[in-house]
Amino acid sequence: MTKQKRIEDYGIKIGSLSKGKLNKITDVQGVKVGHCTINTDQNKTGVTVIIPQKENIFQNKLVSASYVLNGFGKTAGLIQIDELGTLESPIALTNTLNVGLVHDAVVEYMIKECNRDNIEMKSINPIICECNDSFLNNIHMRAVKKEHVFKAIEKSCKDFKEGDVGAGKGMSCHQLKGGIGSASRIVELDGKEYTLGVLVQSNYGLLEDLTILGQNIGKELSKKISVKGKSDKGSIIIIIATDLPVTSRQLKRICKRTSVGLARLGSYIGHGSGEVIIGFSTANVLKHKENKGVISINIMDENKINKAFRAAAETCEEAVLNSMVTADKVIGYNGNVREALKKYL
Amino acid sequence: MTKQKRIEDYGIKIGSLSKGKLNKITDVQGVKVGHCTINTDQNKTGVTVIIPQKENIFQNKLVSASYVLNGFGKTAGLIQIDELGTLESPIALTNTLNVGLVHDAVVEYMIKECNRDNIEMKSINPIICECNDSFLNNIHMRAVKKEHVFKAIEKSCKDFKEGDVGAGKGMSCHQLKGGIGSASRIVELDGKEYTLGVLVQSNYGLLEDLTILGQNIGKELSKKISVKGKSDKGSIIIIIATDLPVTSRQLKRICKRTSVGLARLGSYIGHGSGEVIIGFSTANVLKHKENKGVISINIMDENKINKAFRAAAETCEEAVLNSMVTADKVIGYNGNVREALKKYL
Amino acid sequence: MTKQKRIEDYGIKIGSLSKGKLNKITDVQGVKVGHCTINTDQNKTGVTVIIPQKENIFQNKLVSASYVLNGFGKTAGLIQIDELGTLESPIALTNTLNVGLVHDAVVEYMIKECNRDNIEMKSINPIICECNDSFLNNIHMRAVKKEHVFKAIEKSCKDFKEGDVGAGKGMSCHQLKGGIGSASRIVELDGKEYTLGVLVQSNYGLLEDLTILGQNIGKELSKKISVKGKSDKGSIIIIIATDLPVTSRQLKRICKRTSVGLARLGSYIGHGSGEVIIGFSTANVLKHKENKGVISINIMDENKINKAFRAAAETCEEAVLNSMVTADKVIGYNGNVREALKKYL
Amino acid sequence: MTKQKRIEDYGIKIGSLSKGKLNKITDVQGVKVGHCTINTDQNKTGVTVIIPQKENIFQNKLVSASYVLNGFGKTAGLIQIDELGTLESPIALTNTLNVGLVHDAVVEYMIKECNRDNIEMKSINPIICECNDSFLNNIHMRAVKKEHVFKAIEKSCKDFKEGDVGAGKGMSCHQLKGGIGSASRIVELDGKEYTLGVLVQSNYGLLEDLTILGQNIGKELSKKISVKGKSDKGSIIIIIATDLPVTSRQLKRICKRTSVGLARLGSYIGHGSGEVIIGFSTANVLKHKENKGVISINIMDENKINKAFRAAAETCEEAVLNSMVTADKVIGYNGNVREALKKYL
Repeated sequence: MTKQKRIEDYGIKIGSLSKGKLNKITDVQGVKVGHCTINTDQNKTGVTVIIPQKENIFQNKLVSASYVLNGFGKTAGLIQIDELGTLESPIALTNTLNVGLVHDAVVEYMIKECNRDNIEMKSINPIICECNDSFLNNIHMRAVKKEHVFKAIEKSCKDFKEGDVGAGKGMSCHQLKGGIGSASRIVELDGKEYTLGVLVQSNYGLLEDLTILGQNIGKELSKKISVKGKSDKGSIIIIIATDLPVTSRQLKRICKRTSVGLARLGSYIGHGSGEVIIGFSTANVLKHKENKGVISINIMDENKINKAFRAAAETCEEAVLNSMVTADKVIGYNGNVREALKKYL
Repeated sequence: MTKQKRIEDYGIKIGSLSKGKLNKITDVQGVKVGHCTINTDQNKTGVTVIIPQKENIFQNKLVSASYVLNGFGKTAGLIQIDELGTLESPIALTNTLNVGLVHDAVVEYMIKECNRDNIEMKSINPIICECNDSFLNNIHMRAVKKEHVFKAIEKSCKDFKEGDVGAGKGMSCHQLKGGIGSASRIVELDGKEYTLGVLVQSNYGLLEDLTILGQNIGKELSKKISVKGKSDKGSIIIIIATDLPVTSRQLKRICKRTSVGLARLGSYIGHGSGEVIIGFSTANVLKHKENKGVISINIMDENKINKAFRAAAETCEEAVLNSMVTADKVIGYNGNVREALKKYL
Repeated sequence: MTKQKRIEDYGIKIGSLSKGKLNKITDVQGVKVGHCTINTDQNKTGVTVIIPQKENIFQNKLVSASYVLNGFGKTAGLIQIDELGTLESPIALTNTLNVGLVHDAVVEYMIKECNRDNIEMKSINPIICECNDSFLNNIHMRAVKKEHVFKAIEKSCKDFKEGDVGAGKGMSCHQLKGGIGSASRIVELDGKEYTLGVLVQSNYGLLEDLTILGQNIGKELSKKISVKGKSDKGSIIIIIATDLPVTSRQLKRICKRTSVGLARLGSYIGHGSGEVIIGFSTANVLKHKENKGVISINIMDENKINKAFRAAAETCEEAVLNSMVTADKVIGYNGNVREALKKYL
Repeated sequence: MTKQKRIEDYGIKIGSLSKGKLNKITDVQGVKVGHCTINTDQNKTGVTVIIPQKENIFQNKLVSASYVLNGFGKTAGLIQIDELGTLESPIALTNTLNVGLVHDAVVEYMIKECNRDNIEMKSINPIICECNDSFLNNIHMRAVKKEHVFKAIEKSCKDFKEGDVGAGKGMSCHQLKGGIGSASRIVELDGKEYTLGVLVQSNYGLLEDLTILGQNIGKELSKKISVKGKSDKGSIIIIIATDLPVTSRQLKRICKRTSVGLARLGSYIGHGSGEVIIGFSTANVLKHKENKGVISINIMDENKINKAFRAAAETCEEAVLNSMVTADKVIGYNGNVREALKKYL
C-alpha cells in the first residue's frame, strides 16, 4: 500500500465534509489511476491515466461534462463531451508537446480493447489533458512514447501514488514542486452515501500567492526561497469522478465549483494558466448501441446539489495541497529546481 | 374552430414527416396559445402567450433549453433556463419596447396563480420574447398594457389563430406580412408516437431572399412589389414544445436544428435579426420542492435524435410559411404597408 | 461628500494594487451611480443605477461583456451583450420581482433621452439586474415604481453612498446586512494609469462561511448571532467599469476573475445564488451609426492582462466587504433582522 | 495550373457576390493549401493543411474564432482559440483516428520552424480537424504518418487541387464522393475590396437530401444509385480565411453563417456529423511577444457585417459542391463505392 504523508497528516484540515476511505478519486467504485514516470537528467515528465470504470468505456459510456476555467491550454476531446455529454475513453494527462502522441496511443489502446471485446469501433474521442513542464523538463525532446501510455494504463490501481509521479513529474505549483494529487468526499442523498473524488495535475501559480487555510504562507516563503521562472505558462487539470446520479448539465455546474478551491489557495486564474475541469459520473451507463428509444436514468434533485458543490470545492483544494506536499524536490533540465512544500510545513 | 387557409392548403408540402392533428404547437398535450391584438391607426402590435401545461408551471417545472441563433434581441429569462434547464412560467411574445411591461404582467399573473394554488413563490423567471414591429407600429407609444397580457392568457386555447394576430400583428417577414405561425410533426420511438410542435413570431428577412421549396420566388416578387424598409431590425422567435423525453442538453440540440428551416426559406441569419429558440418538454415534470434526493427521468436514446432534428427543421420551415400565408395585408403606422403572401401564391 | 467608514478604515487591506481616488467604480471617468431607496415598514428595497458615461449611451455604445457565474437569476439584456459586445443603456439593479417594471422605466428614459438628443431609436437593450430581497422586503408588493428609477438616475453622482441604500436596502450577505459596495484599482500600461472599478449588489452566502483575509470569522459569529433563513435565494451582481482598452472577449475574461474575490470571502457559488458579472470599457466608443466601414480601436496586449485580472479579484473582494461594513442593521418585513457587520469588527 | 471542372463550369451559380481570382480560399493573400494523399487498396485517406500566412505563425498570431455547429467530432485546439481569439499554427485536416499522429507532426514541424527562426516556443496549439473516412478507408490501419503531414505542408500552394485528394480522399458527401472543396467572395468596405475564402472537407449527409439550387436532386439520384452506409458518422470541417479586419467575436458570427450554406444543400445538421467551423483573419497580426501594453487594431463596423455573412453562406455552399463535383468515383476498402456527382450533372 502507498504510504505518503498527505496534507491532513500535517494537521491541515480542508473543509467540513467527511472523506472517502482512501481520500482519493479512486474511492469512486471502478475508477483506477496509473502512472508512468520519465525521470532522466534531461526529462522530468510522464503520463497519468484515469480509467473511469471496469467495463469497456466505449461500449458503456458515462455521463460527462467539462468546464474550461481558462482556455489557454491544449486539452483534446472537449467538444464531443460538451455536445453529447458522455465519456467514451480513458483520460490521459501528459505534457503540452506530447498531447498528440498520447492521443495516438489512446486510440491504439481503444482499438485493441474494442477488438478484444468484439465491439465495432471506428470513431473514438480520447480525452488528453496537459500541463507545461518545460521548466523542469526538456520538453522539445518530447520524451513520452506510446509505451509509456500503455504502461500507465497497465499499472492503474486504486491506491496510486501522488506527487512528482507520472504526468506530475515535471509540474510546478506556486513555484514549488507540484504534481498529481487527489482527495474525496462523501455526499449523502436519501440516506445513501455517494462519493465525489478529484484528481489534479497541479502546475499553476506564483509562490507569493500561496495560501493555506487562509494564511498567505507564500509571502513568507518567497523571502526564504529564491524562485526562477514566472510560472505563467502553467495550467491545472482537474478530473472529477462521482457516483452521484447527475445529468451532464448538473455535472458541469459541479465542475465549475472547483474554481473555489483554487481561489482559496491563492490563484486568481492567471492568463497563461490553462485550467480545465472534466467530470464523469458512473451512476448511469449509456450503451453505445441502445435498442430502446427511451431509457430511464436517475438524476439528483437540483435543490440538493449544494452538497456536491461543497465537495467539489473542498476536494480540489485538498487535492492540490496533496499534490504539493507529497512531492519531493526535483532538480531538472538546465539545473532548474523546484523545492518541496513539505520542507517548509 | 379556426379555419384559416394554410400553406399545405396551397399544395405546398414541407418535409416528409407526418403531422399532428391540428398541425400546431398545441398538438402537444397541455399546451395552449392565446393572443391579444392591438389594432388601431397608430398601433399594430399585441401579445401572444404560450401556456406550457395544465398544472401550475412554477410548482411543476418542465425541462427546457434555449438556443440563441443571433443575439441581437432582448428576450428575457434565458440565463436561468441555461443554468437550470427548466421552465417555470408561461412564455410571452410581444414587441421590443414592451418587454419590461409584459415581464411585469407575467410576474403579477404568476403571483396570483401561486397564491391561489397556495404555493410559496418569491422568485420567478418569466420568459419574454420580442420582435421589432416599428415598421407598422408606433412603437414609442408602447401600446401594450398589462390587461393585454392577462387577456391573452385568458383566451389561450388549442386551436388558436395564426397570421397578423397577437404579437404577430405588426410583424414583417421577408418584407411581406409576417406574424404568428405554427406546425407540428409526429416522431415515433419504440412504437409510440410523440409530438413536436413549433410556434414562430416571424419578422426577419429580405423579400429578394424568400425561397419556397427551393424556388427563390422573392426575386420575382421584388419586381412586382415595391418594399420599403431594409427589414434589418427584424427577429424571429421560435418556440418548440414536445412530449419527447429529453434532457435540457438534448433539447438544446433540437432547438438548434430550426435554423435549417430558416435557411431553406432564404434567411442567412442577418446581423440585425434577433433569432432566439426556446424549447420545453412536457415529458418529465420537476417539482419545485422535491422530497427525494434522487429522481428518475426518461430520456431519448441519443442515436434516435435525428428524428427530432428533422421534425424541428420541418416544423420551423412550415410554421414561418403558415405565419405569412395566414396573414392579411396590413397598412400601419405612417402609412407603411406589408402585403399578404397569399395574394401572390 | 459621503463619509462612510469602509473596510480599509478598519485596517483591513485587500490585495496589493493601488486604489483610485474614491476607491469606487466612479473613479472611472464619466461613470456615475445613483440610488433611490424605499424604506417603509413593509418594504426594504429600491433601485441603483450605473450611468456608464456622459454622452448618450445609445448613440455612443461602449465595449461590454458579461459572465454568468451562476445563472439562477433574472438579469435581462445579456444575450445582446454577448452577441454584439456593446452596452447601449444604463445598468439598473433592483429586486427580483421588479425587473420588468424597471426595464419598462429604462426604456421610457432612453426614449426621452434619444428624443431630446434627436437620435432615432426604435430598439434598446436595457440591462436590468436583480437580487432577491424577500427576507427583509415584502417582495410581493412590488414596491418599486418608475419614478424610483427616474429618481435614481437623476441623483446619480461620483461619490455615491454604499450599504443599505438603493437596490441594496433589502440585501443579505452571509446572513448579515449586505447591499451596495464598491472599490477600484489602478493598472499601469506603458507608463499610463488606467482604472478598474467594481460595484456589487451583495446578497449571497451563509454566515458560517464568511471569511475575511483568510480568517473564517463567520464561524465565530454564527455562535453569537442567531440567523434565520437559509439565504439560498440570494445572488450577487457585479458591475465592472474600466478605461482599459479591451475587446469584449478580453473583458469577459476580466469579469470571470471576480469569482476569485467571492471565493476568498467564503462563497462556494451556491446553487440558489444568481451570480452575474457585467463589464464595460469607456476606452473605445462605437457609434450607433458609423459612416466608415473599418474603424480603429485600441486593445490591451493580452500578455499584460494579469494586472487587470488581479484588479478584478481584489476590487470584487473589497467591494463586497464595503457593502457589508457600510450597511446598518435592518429590521424588515415580518420582523426579519439582518445585523450589521460593523458591530462585530 | 490546376484545371478541374468546378460547379460554376456546369452553369450552376451559387449566390450573388463576385468571386476571387481563383475562387478558392487561397485568394486571401498569404494563404496556401497542401495535400498528401494515401491511395492504396486498403487506404483512401490523407492530410490537407492550410498555411495561414507567410510569416512564422507562432510569432505572428492571427485573429481567429471557431464555431461548433455539431460537436460530435474530435477537432483539437478549439479551447485556446475560444479563450485567446488567436491562431498560432497551421490547420491540418485528416481522418478521425489519425488526429493524434497529425497533432504530433504539427508540433514537430512548429518546433523546427521556431528553432530556425530563433523563436523560443515551448507551447503550441495545433489545430487538427477530422472527418471519418472508414467507409472507403481501412481506418484501423491508421495509414497517415508524420511524413505525410510534412509533405502536405511542403507542397502547399495557391492553386491547389480539390476533390478526392489529401484529407478528402476517403470522404463521402450525401453518400456520393466528397472531399476537399473551396470558394471565395469579394466584400467591399469603404471602396476597398476584401476577400473571404472557404475550404471544406465534406463528409456528411444522405443522398436523398441533396439539394442544388433548391432542387432536391438527391431524391431522383437515390432511385438510380444504390448507396450503402447510413452516412451518419460523417462530419464537415469548414475553414474560413479572410483579410477583413475583424475581432474574434465578429469572426465567430461569420463562421456561424456557413450553416446556411449547408442547410441549402439539404443538411439538417445530423446527430452523428461533427460540424466544426474555424476562421482566421490576416488583417491584424498579434505578436507573440509584444513590447507595447496597448496596441491598435482595425475592425469592421458591425453594421456592415451582413456582407461577410452572405459571403460565408455562399462560399460554404459552393465549396461543398466543388468538393463533390471535382471528385472522381472511388472504390475503397471492402469494395465500398462512392460515385462521382459529375456523372449525374
